[in-house]
Amino acid sequence: MTNKYELRSGGTGRVMVARLKSGSDLLGALQEMVEDEGVEAGVILSGVGLLGEARLRNCKSLPEEFPITDENRTYLSFSRPLEVLSMSGNVYMAEGSPLVHAHVTLSYVEGDEIGVVGGHLIEECIVFGFAEVILMELDNIKMEKRFDEETRTLQLFV
Amino acid sequence: MTNKYELRSGGTGRVMVARLKSGSDLLGALQEMVEDEGVEAGVILSGVGLLGEARLRNCKSLPEEFPITDENRTYLSFSRPLEVLSMSGNVYMAEGSPLVHAHVTLSYVEGDEIGVVGGHLIEECIVFGFAEVILMELDNIKMEKRFDEETRTLQLFV
Amino acid sequence: MTNKYELRSGGTGRVMVARLKSGSDLLGALQEMVEDEGVEAGVILSGVGLLGEARLRNCKSLPEEFPITDENRTYLSFSRPLEVLSMSGNVYMAEGSPLVHAHVTLSYVEGDEIGVVGGHLIEECIVFGFAEVILMELDNIKMEKRFDEETRTLQLFV
Repeated sequence: MTNKYELRSGGTGRVMVARLKSGSDLLGALQEMVEDEGVEAGVILSGVGLLGEARLRNCKSLPEEFPITDENRTYLSFSRPLEVLSMSGNVYMAEGSPLVHAHVTLSYVEGDEIGVVGGHLIEECIVFGFAEVILMELDNIKMEKRFDEETRTLQLFV
Repeated sequence: MTNKYELRSGGTGRVMVARLKSGSDLLGALQEMVEDEGVEAGVILSGVGLLGEARLRNCKSLPEEFPITDENRTYLSFSRPLEVLSMSGNVYMAEGSPLVHAHVTLSYVEGDEIGVVGGHLIEECIVFGFAEVILMELDNIKMEKRFDEETRTLQLFV
Repeated sequence: MTNKYELRSGGTGRVMVARLKSGSDLLGALQEMVEDEGVEAGVILSGVGLLGEARLRNCKSLPEEFPITDENRTYLSFSRPLEVLSMSGNVYMAEGSPLVHAHVTLSYVEGDEIGVVGGHLIEECIVFGFAEVILMELDNIKMEKRFDEETRTLQLFV
């Protein structure tokens, strides 16, 4: 197999530490933050906190041909306390606007057992009490997504 | 919905790479480390390793009124090998001392299946063999928690 | 209990943002990347993406005496879509070559439920569509693993 990757290097920039307040939409607040702060390239270093409800997107099937569409995806909602165990992802530009792309891992309690779910972060993940997110801006690197012929979606470094 | 957040920006500082030795308490060793090194603001960039036993805190119910107390929490213990899949969190000051706030995701094997648990990192998570934790100090940012009227707990940037 | 750790401090270096293309072996591509780029010390800041198949290593039993060997481990394979929720780990030198040590958390869908698995990243985790990995080089720190008498394996800062 030939491993293939596209790579760009940059440097570290501002580190932004945010406390999201109770009732905020996790993705919505992050999206607002990168717009307010003018972040054009960034990486999520850390995310912890508690949610009162959540909604996650996952891929349930692989298409025979690209692109992946909503027919390949499942959207599931949770209405219970969920700890944010991890938040991974980045901030890139698409068509002139900064966008947050993040995946989360969440834990909950069922009787004497801990359950864990996760997926692509979408709207309707609502902070309960607080969440702390740390984002680092990247300098001297252009993280812009453009249309990629192979996957027929927007991708970095096309 | 109005998304609400409090944000402060700083810069990158020292990066500390630590190997925790077998038998160490994961949180206890990290706590000792930030005290020994005089870290006043930081972010956990990475944590991997193996535990021989673990204890985790999760939120099982949401209070009608803040604060969240131990009545809303479950403490569960595990006595088996558990891989540390992720460690997220930060280091802040409270009442003059540095404190580590971290969440972990852990995996274990049950027959031919992999189970995953997670939660707030508390004491009694004991390293087996080794764990590697990478922490970055943050410069020019004051991460101090103070009493927050809304959540009735200590919070960042009150 | 005496907590014990070995610690070295360094500074931040280049930040490398990579998009791994469809069909790539996740570990293989990262390994190729650190060799091509001459990374001698690094930390994985973020990893998100989608896999079409995966293989993970976990520890199923603790040996009475070190070292941990393959008798203590389980290797499990998955053939389905799996979202990469988190990737943690670092890059170090062993016997003159850079090596990637990473743990991953993965989610999948089963009917109306989300399952989560994870473990030590090994070969045969195959990217579907794309994966985005952000790695930061560390400056002024020598991350070399050498034989450790206590655990009878290669360890950092021996």
